[in-house]
Amino acid sequence: MQPFTFHNPTRIVFGPGTTARIGKETKACGRRALLLYGKGSAERTGVLGRVRDSLNQAGLQWEALGGVRPNPVLNFAREAIAFFRQQRLDVIVAVGGGSVIDTAKTIAAGARYDGEVWDFFSGRAEVKTAAPITTVLTLAATGSEMNSGGVITNEESQEKYHLASPSLYPQCSILDPVNTFTVPRDHSMYGAVDAMIHLLEGYFNAGEEDLPLQDRLVEGLLRTLMEAAEVVYHEPENYPARANLMWGATLALNGLTTAGTGNTGFPMHMIEHSLSAIYDIAHGAGLSIVGPAWMRYASARAPRKFAQFAERIFGIDQGTASQRAQAGIEALEKWFVARGVPTRLPEANIPEQDIPRIAANARRLAEVWGLDDYTQREIEAVLEHAGAATARSAGR
Amino acid sequence: MQPFTFHNPTRIVFGPGTTARIGKETKACGRRALLLYGKGSAERTGVLGRVRDSLNQAGLQWEALGGVRPNPVLNFAREAIAFFRQQRLDVIVAVGGGSVIDTAKTIAAGARYDGEVWDFFSGRAEVKTAAPITTVLTLAATGSEMNSGGVITNEESQEKYHLASPSLYPQCSILDPVNTFTVPRDHSMYGAVDAMIHLLEGYFNAGEEDLPLQDRLVEGLLRTLMEAAEVVYHEPENYPARANLMWGATLALNGLTTAGTGNTGFPMHMIEHSLSAIYDIAHGAGLSIVGPAWMRYASARAPRKFAQFAERIFGIDQGTASQRAQAGIEALEKWFVARGVPTRLPEANIPEQDIPRIAANARRLAEVWGLDDYTQREIEAVLEHAGAATARSAGR
Repeated sequence: MQPFTFHNPTRIVFGPGTTARIGKETKACGRRALLLYGKGSAERTGVLGRVRDSLNQAGLQWEALGGVRPNPVLNFAREAIAFFRQQRLDVIVAVGGGSVIDTAKTIAAGARYDGEVWDFFSGRAEVKTAAPITTVLTLAATGSEMNSGGVITNEESQEKYHLASPSLYPQCSILDPVNTFTVPRDHSMYGAVDAMIHLLEGYFNAGEEDLPLQDRLVEGLLRTLMEAAEVVYHEPENYPARANLMWGATLALNGLTTAGTGNTGFPMHMIEHSLSAIYDIAHGAGLSIVGPAWMRYASARAPRKFAQFAERIFGIDQGTASQRAQAGIEALEKWFVARGVPTRLPEANIPEQDIPRIAANARRLAEVWGLDDYTQREIEAVLEHAGAATARSAGR
Repeated sequence: MQPFTFHNPTRIVFGPGTTARIGKETKACGRRALLLYGKGSAERTGVLGRVRDSLNQAGLQWEALGGVRPNPVLNFAREAIAFFRQQRLDVIVAVGGGSVIDTAKTIAAGARYDGEVWDFFSGRAEVKTAAPITTVLTLAATGSEMNSGGVITNEESQEKYHLASPSLYPQCSILDPVNTFTVPRDHSMYGAVDAMIHLLEGYFNAGEEDLPLQDRLVEGLLRTLMEAAEVVYHEPENYPARANLMWGATLALNGLTTAGTGNTGFPMHMIEHSLSAIYDIAHGAGLSIVGPAWMRYASARAPRKFAQFAERIFGIDQGTASQRAQAGIEALEKWFVARGVPTRLPEANIPEQDIPRIAANARRLAEVWGLDDYTQREIEAVLEHAGAATARSAGR
């Protein structure tokens, strides 16, 4: 096990009806709130109304700001920072999924920084302090509700980069699985894929050391997420399944499963960020394409962990390590197909001819993240596994 | 999944050589430290010297207080509270295992309370505030290094009770597996048993609801603890095994595995506390006796979860649920025997004739904890499974 520091101070309030507690939880952090939300679904489902009621009952003042879009963008966050300062607000209430919470983190850091907020994403500056954040989560996916990171797209440069700082953990996150009952099937599945890939980034990138504790945490959470996603696919209002998907997705990226694994890197996310930065596809849809492609690429070099994955997740125990690894990746891809998510570039209307362009974009992020092994050529080699021809040759 | 609040603010610093960081971590909490430790092993192994060096380098003032014993007692804590106040100390550095950390929590709560500190244990008062605590853990067992509870024995009344409060989470805990290399084999195994039973209390007492996420976390941690204990039994200085035992024991009682399980109760601990309160045996030794006895008692009423335990931990998949449950408990007991820990009362020199006396003691704690189903007669029924005759009939 590698040395680590684990410190996750976010308070989680989980259960049906807990949205009503956002006012009291927020009041512990500030008096004048920015109420941040997305494109309107939180209004339609009534969640936003319940949040406003709770903030009012707690005696908080608040200013609403909607319009955060999926793959949230830098320009919106910049305007929100100006608004936050101008209105002399002191806390952010994020109502939504990862896009809204990541935007809240960008605002929280930018509001207390005199420079350009993109500095935090490009690696030119570190977040030292940030405004406090509370959240009401409406999508099980990114884990942003209980971690210290966030992702934003710079539209001009087509860079989808991330910031992170211990000061960006939300103070409190309200997790009411009922608030996810109305998430459409496709986005529910994208969310499940996102959480699954979060687990697998640490699992497959941890090096050759035996990590029985972390492996079993990942495998247990992964199987739970998959079972829950299968139920949610057919029964969107199944409370136990929505609850397991929600808490499982939170635990998938709150530092628990990577504590002790060393510095693993996030190559699948690195490459996916280029897909959603250039083509504005859902992050989870990009991951269901990049995930199996990267696994084929990586397992060819070091099949051992992939064989373990095949055996423990899909019960595949026949053949050489390499054969089991391939069978496990194929089983995962089939599972993705059955959940209706894309697994090849053309399924997301991304031409295979664009692979060099995507790889060039991803290469810039590889430099920021210090993933030096991922040259343009290596990234292309990953993406070539996601072409249509490969799909056909795999018998799909 | 049941509603829950999860908020664990303890900062964990894990890895070899991290003891040197205790000074800096403690300085963030106070200036005048009580350096609390046990019967001298921390001095002999050099850990205490490294802690003193680190406190000195950080410029902290400190007063040492040794002598905390296993099954720590109220009178010691009372004297330490007086000392803490008299010396105008403001932070406690606990160097040791659960006994030292639990004593630190008692001092921390008592130092900021005008009444009698036992009030917190008897349920007459709640801890509202406490002095900050940092710890350097030297025994993988109780999980006290990352939770909000503690246990103390009132020698006069032979009551081993517990206190808990969100203000009792340690601010920071240093987990260096190397600091556990010198723990004797028997106490290493008692520690493993303690952590295992912590996991199983939540697992077996969570009611009939399906809890796939929590079950898998428990099963994964349990298998890891068992594998690690087997290695440590033969190789006390095996770093990966000591590391898995240490982090596994911390995660076994930090709120993670019980979040969402509802209010489960801790009946095995409730009964064990009477054994160590009356006979002053090691807590883990008491648990290896009470654990299988309670499981035989409880599985006779509701075998389903015990059958799952048998299948997922020991691969027992033949027979009825009831048969699998019994085979699983037997396998666990055999595993305990192979680790050299007692599983029957006579092995700890506790006469079977004392069962009514033990049950009467445990019944008082059942009242404090609100475990109303555990009448004197029911507790006797549990303990009767731990008699020597039963051991013989089980073919041991």
